[in-house]
Amino acid sequence: MDFKIRAAKQEDCKEISRMIIELAVFEKMQDQVKISTQELERDGFCSNPRFECQVAEVSEEHKSSQGYTVVGYTLYFYTYSTWMGPTVFMEDLYVMPEYRGKGIGKGLMSKVAQVGKEHQCSRLQLTVLDWNTRSLDFYIMKGARDMTASEGWHALRFDGEALDKLAAEAPKD
Amino acid sequence: MDFKIRAAKQEDCKEISRMIIELAVFEKMQDQVKISTQELERDGFCSNPRFECQVAEVSEEHKSSQGYTVVGYTLYFYTYSTWMGPTVFMEDLYVMPEYRGKGIGKGLMSKVAQVGKEHQCSRLQLTVLDWNTRSLDFYIMKGARDMTASEGWHALRFDGEALDKLAAEAPKD
Repeated sequence: MDFKIRAAKQEDCKEISRMIIELAVFEKMQDQVKISTQELERDGFCSNPRFECQVAEVSEEHKSSQGYTVVGYTLYFYTYSTWMGPTVFMEDLYVMPEYRGKGIGKGLMSKVAQVGKEHQCSRLQLTVLDWNTRSLDFYIMKGARDMTASEGWHALRFDGEALDKLAAEAPKD
Repeated sequence: MDFKIRAAKQEDCKEISRMIIELAVFEKMQDQVKISTQELERDGFCSNPRFECQVAEVSEEHKSSQGYTVVGYTLYFYTYSTWMGPTVFMEDLYVMPEYRGKGIGKGLMSKVAQVGKEHQCSRLQLTVLDWNTRSLDFYIMKGARDMTASEGWHALRFDGEALDKLAAEAPKD
């Protein structure tokens, strides 16, 4: 089956929003999704976008059982290593279940690697849930290293009241 | 001891570069530091900076045994959650050993939280090495959650030949 990988346009945000929820359902964390299509449109397609996005599209004849032709996406942004300089972080990579095993996920990820290298990035980073062995195996097979397993890196997060409290205690200028 | 937290200026990059190496030595990974003062100047202080930085400064009378007055820094950038929207990622937080235990690290981190909230960020994220229990305890005490321990998030990385190979295999436009 042919598919096309292309940079997302603002009018794709409704489809991206749909797939963000599908991915969160798979990750069993759909209650954490608070973002709207409008916010994606605003944050990704302004003069100083906070992320970039690529989508995978199939032809009408291969549309999904529910009628969709945009069947996968990846959302990523540029980060920075104080050891290596520019890096790219792939926040999401998703392919609808009925389109898996056809190279679409690989195609999306390769596109991020290519775009990242065009932006002088020497690393592509991502996080994955340890029980999601299908994805973990996929990334490792493609050459990723598990930095949590090998070096012991843990991801920490401040949010909600903890973040509010921290911000309120900042020294005055 | 009084200290001041302020946004870094381009002329601080030499000091930041020195402290990046000090931090990497502490993390036992100094061989991974490939970045130069010039690259920091270029990447952080251009029209579209790839990161922001705050430094901690003490007065001349409290300068370090080697004569430094810039004694800590934090380097951070804006990221994006497809569930929550804008987030801020604190890549580095460092205070020189002889200045620890005086609230400087807390001051720097609080400043990032404050600036992050001004940029509509609902999360402050970071990674820490699991054997660095002093830092891990510090963050947890301030209200951070360990997402690797609680939800199983692992950090993955493509670099070197694995990244080159991935990029080379990207589908043609």
